[in-house]
Amino acid sequence: MAVSREGIVAAALTILDEYGLADLSMRRIGDAVGVQASTIYWHFANKQSLLAGVSDAILATQADAWPGEPVAALIGWARDLRSVLLTHRDAAELVAATLAVGLGSRIPDAAAVPIFVRAGWPGQEAERAARATSQFVLGHVMHEQTRQNLLRLGVLPPDAETLDDEGFDLGLRLVAAGAAALNGQPAPS
Amino acid sequence: MAVSREGIVAAALTILDEYGLADLSMRRIGDAVGVQASTIYWHFANKQSLLAGVSDAILATQADAWPGEPVAALIGWARDLRSVLLTHRDAAELVAATLAVGLGSRIPDAAAVPIFVRAGWPGQEAERAARATSQFVLGHVMHEQTRQNLLRLGVLPPDAETLDDEGFDLGLRLVAAGAAALNGQPAPS
Repeated sequence: MAVSREGIVAAALTILDEYGLADLSMRRIGDAVGVQASTIYWHFANKQSLLAGVSDAILATQADAWPGEPVAALIGWARDLRSVLLTHRDAAELVAATLAVGLGSRIPDAAAVPIFVRAGWPGQEAERAARATSQFVLGHVMHEQTRQNLLRLGVLPPDAETLDDEGFDLGLRLVAAGAAALNGQPAPS
Repeated sequence: MAVSREGIVAAALTILDEYGLADLSMRRIGDAVGVQASTIYWHFANKQSLLAGVSDAILATQADAWPGEPVAALIGWARDLRSVLLTHRDAAELVAATLAVGLGSRIPDAAAVPIFVRAGWPGQEAERAARATSQFVLGHVMHEQTRQNLLRLGVLPPDAETLDDEGFDLGLRLVAAGAAALNGQPAPS
């Protein structure tokens, strides 16, 4: 039976949202698309490659470019990344794991690099600054999504707050103000 | 048979370092201290409480206070936290999970709050800024420790870099410069 790469990724996203990353198995995905788990390996060499495909699908909804004044652009990029990650259960953990293994073809901080370059940061420093900013966003959203899972499990009380908008905005303003203050000239350590 | 709370935590830390967080089971800890897993529940109500005890033990090695000039103090605190987390396998994930469930009696950003207060930040803003900074540190070290696990599994090549000192220092300088530039007056969003 024919099953497309896109169909497998779509089924994986549905399972992710319903059951979470820990229960996203090849077998469950195979059941959802009506094939043996082994058939999935025609399209994805292993589970990590499949997760990278799911990460790419999630990040495909990120805005591509943030023109204009760098501080406002950086804040816009980071808010967009957080909102993209919050669209799918456990997305921050999945995207972070894919980034660590280096398999995804979409990098969450890709659109942030030109913002730092435009603010006067040389190439490699711009990449590091963009990566550091995305690590803050991923760390923050992982915290929020862990709390969402704990709420689902009944470990947190039903009225527990899981999202922290104020904390996110403050962290983001710290990073953006730092980027503006350093102006591409990171202080010596 | 008598087994102390401290003995259980020490055994859990040894198992964590050898097998990783995913294989840190009550049964394995019970085997290590020579009691039934059920005996562990005399000391810890559930697995989350046990993990909180392990998180507290890890964070007990953090320096308590960072006096002096705020930017240097913040950099010192963050480097210390990273180095404490890198001492035990999967520590960033374990500490972040404990922070999300709200069970640990030690908070990784506790010593950073007075630094922001000293820099002129009002109480709640100082707490948010300290939390945001710790989310960057946790996000960064989780990335490094995920890569260490992938290296152990042979998913990454043997010569793959797992630590990223330059990226960490740059992210930290961004946050510290932002804290100094805002000077306790976060810009309106």
